[in-house]
Amino acid sequence: MPFSTAEAFAPASMGNVGVGFDILGLALEEPGDVVRATLRSAPGTAIVRIEGDSGALPIDPQKNTAAVAAQAVLDTIGVQQGVDLVLHKRLPLASGLGSSAASAVAAAVAVNALFGTPLTKEALLPACLEGEARVSGYHADNIAPSLLGGIILIAGGHRVRRLPVPPGLWLGLITPDIAVPTVEARAVLPETVPLALMTAQTAAVALLIDALYRGDISQMAAAMESDGIVEPARAHLMPRLAEVRAAAKQVGALGVVISGAGPTLCAVCDSADIARSAAAAMKAEYDRVGIASSALHCQVGLEGARVLCVQ
Amino acid sequence: MPFSTAEAFAPASMGNVGVGFDILGLALEEPGDVVRATLRSAPGTAIVRIEGDSGALPIDPQKNTAAVAAQAVLDTIGVQQGVDLVLHKRLPLASGLGSSAASAVAAAVAVNALFGTPLTKEALLPACLEGEARVSGYHADNIAPSLLGGIILIAGGHRVRRLPVPPGLWLGLITPDIAVPTVEARAVLPETVPLALMTAQTAAVALLIDALYRGDISQMAAAMESDGIVEPARAHLMPRLAEVRAAAKQVGALGVVISGAGPTLCAVCDSADIARSAAAAMKAEYDRVGIASSALHCQVGLEGARVLCVQ
Repeated sequence: MPFSTAEAFAPASMGNVGVGFDILGLALEEPGDVVRATLRSAPGTAIVRIEGDSGALPIDPQKNTAAVAAQAVLDTIGVQQGVDLVLHKRLPLASGLGSSAASAVAAAVAVNALFGTPLTKEALLPACLEGEARVSGYHADNIAPSLLGGIILIAGGHRVRRLPVPPGLWLGLITPDIAVPTVEARAVLPETVPLALMTAQTAAVALLIDALYRGDISQMAAAMESDGIVEPARAHLMPRLAEVRAAAKQVGALGVVISGAGPTLCAVCDSADIARSAAAAMKAEYDRVGIASSALHCQVGLEGARVLCVQ
Repeated sequence: MPFSTAEAFAPASMGNVGVGFDILGLALEEPGDVVRATLRSAPGTAIVRIEGDSGALPIDPQKNTAAVAAQAVLDTIGVQQGVDLVLHKRLPLASGLGSSAASAVAAAVAVNALFGTPLTKEALLPACLEGEARVSGYHADNIAPSLLGGIILIAGGHRVRRLPVPPGLWLGLITPDIAVPTVEARAVLPETVPLALMTAQTAAVALLIDALYRGDISQMAAAMESDGIVEPARAHLMPRLAEVRAAAKQVGALGVVISGAGPTLCAVCDSADIARSAAAAMKAEYDRVGIASSALHCQVGLEGARVLCVQ
C-alpha cells in the first residue's frame, strides 16, 4: 500500500572535480532541489508545478529530467499508479552545479519513497541517469554523487565507487550570473589530445586518488588543478578565471577549479574560515567588474539525496 | 674514510603497470643486477668488466648506464676519488624488465655505500635517472621502483610517491626470447589520443589506485588491463599476446599486461600457486609455437635496491 505523498531533497554536485573529466563527481551539503511526489490512480507522470525556475524548464514530462526519472522508477518498480510532481528548483540552471541531476535524483528518491522504498539508492541510479540523459547526456558524474553523496568515481556505465573524503575539506563556491550550457562547454573540447598531455592527465588523476586516500588536501587541490586539457579549452567561457583563482589563493585556498562545465568556480580549502574567505574574495573580484554572483561555502555532502517526509 | 669495495643489488622492475603508461612502476623481488664498486685514487669511473651480457653492453663509461649513474653519484657527493665497476648482468636486455635501470641503480647504491652512504635512496634518484637517460630516455618508471621498492607513482620529474602494495599479490612473468627495444616500442605509439579514450584511461588509472589502497587484486588486475591506448599500439610487437593471456587466465590469473615496453608479459595473481601456474602456462604457450622463453613468479619487491656487502 503506497503512501499518498513523499518529498525528497537532492544536493548540488560538482562534476569533474578538476582534472577528473567525466569520471569524478562530488556532492555538496547544500543547496539542492526538492521534489514532492503525490500518488494518483492514473498511470504516468505529470509535472504539476515548478517553482524557482522563472519558467525556464519544460512541463512536458517527456522533456523534464525529473519526470523522466520518476517515470523510470515507476517502470522499474512495476506499479500501475502514476505520480504528480511538484519541483522546487533551488539550484541555478546551467551553472555547473548539477542542477538537472539534482531534480532527477530528488524525483526518483521521492517516487521510491512513495512506494515504501522498494529500491536501494544504487538501484535508482539507472532511472536517474535516464532523466539526466534527456537534458545533458548520459553522464553519472553529477547523478551519482547527488544520489549517493561523497566523492564518486564513475567506473563506466552504472558502475560507481565511493572514494574517501578527506576530513577537514571545505569548499568555497562562486556562481557568476552567466549561463554556460553544458552543450556549449562540451563543444569547445578538443577531439584529440597529445599523448604526453594524456600521460600528464593520468598522473594528476592518480595523485588525486592517492591524496583522497591519504587525506592530503594540499596534494588533492594541486592535482585537481593540474588539468592540461579541459580547463584550458573552457577557460575563455569563465570570466576572469585567473583573477578569481588568484583572489581565492590570496586568502588561503589551496586550489581553484571549474565546477563541472562551469561557470561556478570551486576553491578547495582546508578550513571553514578559509572557504568562507575564499568565496567572499571570489565574489569581490566579480563585484569589482560588475558581474553579479552568489557565493557559498560548505563541506562535501556525505549523505547525498534524502527523503524529507512521507505520508 | 671510504671503504675499499662495495657491492649492491638492484631488482628488475615493471614500468607502466598496465594502464599507467609512463607514470607507474613496480619492483620485483628478483631477479636483479649486481654491481661491485672498487675505490681508486684517480678520479672518474671505469667499467672493468661486464658479466652476463654476452658482450652487448658498452664498456665506454660515457655510454654505460651504470658508469653514468656512478659518476653522477661521485659528482653529487663531491669526492676526488674514482671507482672501478664490475657489472653482473642478470637481467635480459630489452626485455621490459628495466634492465638498464637496474644496472644504473645498483651502481649508484654501490658507490654511495663505498663512501659510507652519505646520500639517502631518494637523493640517489637524480643520479640514477642520468644513467637511464643515456640509454632509454629520462623516465623514472623503472628507476624509482628498482631503487625504492614497491609500487611507485611518478608525479613528474623527480617527484615520486609510494603506493600501497596489496597483500597477497603475486606476479607470474614470461620473457620470450625476442628483443623489443624501448625506442622501437615508443615509435609505434600514437601521437594523439581521442578525448573519449583519454577519459577511459584516466578512469582506469583511478580504479587502479583505488584498488591498491583497498587491497583489491581483482579490481587492480582489471584496471591494469583496461588500457585502450598503449597496449593496442604495441600488441603486434608481442608474439601471441592474446593466446598467452588466455592461457594465464585459464589457470586463474586475474589479468595479463605487457611489462614496460615488452616483450615480457606479467600475469597478475592472488596466490603464489596461481602465479607459478600462470608463468608455466604462458611458457607452454610459447613452447608450443617454438619460441624460447623464461618464466618466473614472485611478489612485488618491497625493499628495492640493497647493499650486499661493503668492506
